[in-house]
Amino acid sequence: MPRKFQIGDQLPVLVDRIVESYYADDRTRHLDRVHLPSRRETIEIVQMLLELVYPGYYGRQNLTRHNVRFHVGELLPKIAEKLYEQIFQALCWAREFEGCPQPDGPACESTQLTSCDRLARERTMRFLERIPEIREMLAADVQAAYDGDPAAVNCDEIIMAYPGVLAVTVYRFAHELHVMEVPLIPRIMTEWAHAVTGVDIHPGARIGRSFFIDHATGVVIGETTEIGDHVKLYQGVTLGALSFPKDERGRLIRGQKRHPTVRDGVTIYANATVLGGQTVLGRGSVIGASVFLTTSTPEQASVRLKDPDLQVATRDGAKTAS
Amino acid sequence: MPRKFQIGDQLPVLVDRIVESYYADDRTRHLDRVHLPSRRETIEIVQMLLELVYPGYYGRQNLTRHNVRFHVGELLPKIAEKLYEQIFQALCWAREFEGCPQPDGPACESTQLTSCDRLARERTMRFLERIPEIREMLAADVQAAYDGDPAAVNCDEIIMAYPGVLAVTVYRFAHELHVMEVPLIPRIMTEWAHAVTGVDIHPGARIGRSFFIDHATGVVIGETTEIGDHVKLYQGVTLGALSFPKDERGRLIRGQKRHPTVRDGVTIYANATVLGGQTVLGRGSVIGASVFLTTSTPEQASVRLKDPDLQVATRDGAKTAS
Amino acid sequence: MPRKFQIGDQLPVLVDRIVESYYADDRTRHLDRVHLPSRRETIEIVQMLLELVYPGYYGRQNLTRHNVRFHVGELLPKIAEKLYEQIFQALCWAREFEGCPQPDGPACESTQLTSCDRLARERTMRFLERIPEIREMLAADVQAAYDGDPAAVNCDEIIMAYPGVLAVTVYRFAHELHVMEVPLIPRIMTEWAHAVTGVDIHPGARIGRSFFIDHATGVVIGETTEIGDHVKLYQGVTLGALSFPKDERGRLIRGQKRHPTVRDGVTIYANATVLGGQTVLGRGSVIGASVFLTTSTPEQASVRLKDPDLQVATRDGAKTAS
Repeated sequence: MPRKFQIGDQLPVLVDRIVESYYADDRTRHLDRVHLPSRRETIEIVQMLLELVYPGYYGRQNLTRHNVRFHVGELLPKIAEKLYEQIFQALCWAREFEGCPQPDGPACESTQLTSCDRLARERTMRFLERIPEIREMLAADVQAAYDGDPAAVNCDEIIMAYPGVLAVTVYRFAHELHVMEVPLIPRIMTEWAHAVTGVDIHPGARIGRSFFIDHATGVVIGETTEIGDHVKLYQGVTLGALSFPKDERGRLIRGQKRHPTVRDGVTIYANATVLGGQTVLGRGSVIGASVFLTTSTPEQASVRLKDPDLQVATRDGAKTAS
Repeated sequence: MPRKFQIGDQLPVLVDRIVESYYADDRTRHLDRVHLPSRRETIEIVQMLLELVYPGYYGRQNLTRHNVRFHVGELLPKIAEKLYEQIFQALCWAREFEGCPQPDGPACESTQLTSCDRLARERTMRFLERIPEIREMLAADVQAAYDGDPAAVNCDEIIMAYPGVLAVTVYRFAHELHVMEVPLIPRIMTEWAHAVTGVDIHPGARIGRSFFIDHATGVVIGETTEIGDHVKLYQGVTLGALSFPKDERGRLIRGQKRHPTVRDGVTIYANATVLGGQTVLGRGSVIGASVFLTTSTPEQASVRLKDPDLQVATRDGAKTAS
Repeated sequence: MPRKFQIGDQLPVLVDRIVESYYADDRTRHLDRVHLPSRRETIEIVQMLLELVYPGYYGRQNLTRHNVRFHVGELLPKIAEKLYEQIFQALCWAREFEGCPQPDGPACESTQLTSCDRLARERTMRFLERIPEIREMLAADVQAAYDGDPAAVNCDEIIMAYPGVLAVTVYRFAHELHVMEVPLIPRIMTEWAHAVTGVDIHPGARIGRSFFIDHATGVVIGETTEIGDHVKLYQGVTLGALSFPKDERGRLIRGQKRHPTVRDGVTIYANATVLGGQTVLGRGSVIGASVFLTTSTPEQASVRLKDPDLQVATRDGAKTAS
């Protein structure tokens, strides 16, 4: 039709310029390398895992004691196959990045490493064997949501609709893989949850039982955060780093404890910011909304903004009040 | 192929362990129960409703005065059928949860309740008959967005691209169903909007006309919030609960007024937090960015942070300034 | 089946009421107009552009120096065709909105404007020719993410998983089109990124090289913001407007500088709010977490909350501390 657009004789020139730009910068291209996990496949794995750990809520409905065993027997091998493939890709990707000439070979001879194939098989099985334990933790998280939110109707509603519970669930999958030193996959998982829920939990964070995040959006939990049992966070809470130590060449030092420690039974209200690897919130502390905190608190402490420093005026004339 | 992974002879054992974990905890499984609304279907209903209330923007384009009646005549029965089915499922789900032995039967004989089928038919029709009134409210909301944002080009842009308007639109659908006491569906609707827009409006909140949320991300509006007409919120505003009263056994008391009342013409700027069921923001009040407020304000009040308590230093030496 | 729901003889009445509601308000319908860009097509263009600028990460994997030229030669014409069509629709939409009787004709005779067809062809080509320069900027953004985040493993992880980088990438596409005065499309692009990442960057903002937003959720960057090189933001930062000037009839004046200027090398920590078109953050300034700022800062300034005004109590008795 008349309005169809074609680049015409400029196409080869433009293609060459773009391909040249690929070779001008190796930071933003994945060319001539073989291995990379797939984001799409990884997200599909997460969705199948949700179906596995919350049966009847995600994916297939109408499960009964008669059909559930067949359902799991069908679902589990599919998850295993996909998860194995992505773990394998991620392990090979890391070796390729480190310069291994044949990352998917039987082993890197020079380094005597176990083959990625064997590692991926082992870790896939170890992850799947952890499913019952993960489910135990998730049940406590769901219960914590019910206990912590007066608007909650029942556990069905929480599993079907609470973004904080979804974010924590995906974090628990990702953390298992992180602990097994599976690269990249855990982060892709938590960033998918971040996109859907607004909660950014780094897979490296360590989080205890019965954890609940209400309203969810804007929560950030950094890589080296440690959280005890029965902790409750509200929207917009940051558990972050105070500043980053650099080495003598001005480069960031990676891997230090940069994020807070939160003891059992702590509650942190909306939009509070708690920073620093040395900051410890004592057992049972309550941190008020909008508090900015870079120091530790004693046990059972209650920290809140002082009488808020506000200026209140009306159109009839200015008055200052609390 | 060589790299394909199979669980092998451990499969039956693993399946059994996982199925046992389902029966170990009834909070995180939906087994041997018949009724549950479908999240996927509910989201599809929301998208069809968007097509119905904003014709030509969502879904089918190129509508004219010649074809629009046929378009609506085709779309409406599809919505009705799906909505009926989900409302029916939700009503049966609630009765099943309460122990009714045959929730989808003609009636629970013991309680003399109207059958879920009949209730679902009535509520579906009542909802659809409200569409013109809902459209009137939405038009006022779109106008409020245009009047409130100097960056807005026209109403087309607002309907096509403003997340705050999308969140409020979905809330208005959900609130209608909430008022009719349809369980679960309203919350699934608003949590879909929450995921897409970052705005968490509980379906139970009561919100007047000409409501606008600019930039949207991070806004939380709790279940018992009351908002008048011509109110404007910015990103990150929380209208939340101060603390939750518990009964003598330490359990949360559900159903009390826990969230603020916001009168006509109030503006609340970015990241302000207003808490408490007794907190009333008087007509025409302006609450500044980042303000934390747990007390009421008079009419026409202007509340803002005092000269900000900041510490300003430069590398040449420390100076304290505003 | 027995439970299928049909509206029945009330259908024609209901359809008429809804169609009447369309004609009662021209703000919320797109009827009897021909032109409107498609959100779905626009989002597909963004995804194809991501595949083009980050080869091997998005879309097709396993690119090599042997097949990459063919891949680009196939992808580029597809993008061009779709982008042309949407730009054409957007230009016609704007003319139709302004009352042009035949916006897709050879030209509006009365105004001697170039035809939308020709303008769309020119702008599509100009955009595509900018791809190598856009890639240069993106490489610097990716590097800034690596340099700025101690948790970052390598550039692959950043491109695959960092929402801040995704938001900035989509902004850079949208800004190019905004500069060429393509209506509506840029905003649809950035609002898609907003939905996925929680970062709201207006396409009109001007942002220098090596820009990084960590954790991403809740960041708002207004239309007239100017940002220099090597600037770093954290989650929840607002660069917003202080108040809106109105004309003598009380209508918002559009198009003025309402948002801050941020000079080279500035860092702004989590949840800080910086407002006002006259506010300039001097070169190298550091703005602390949760700071609320409406005044300019000198070069190399460090602005943070004073010793936080907190009230700390324990259950044994109240104590006031820092």
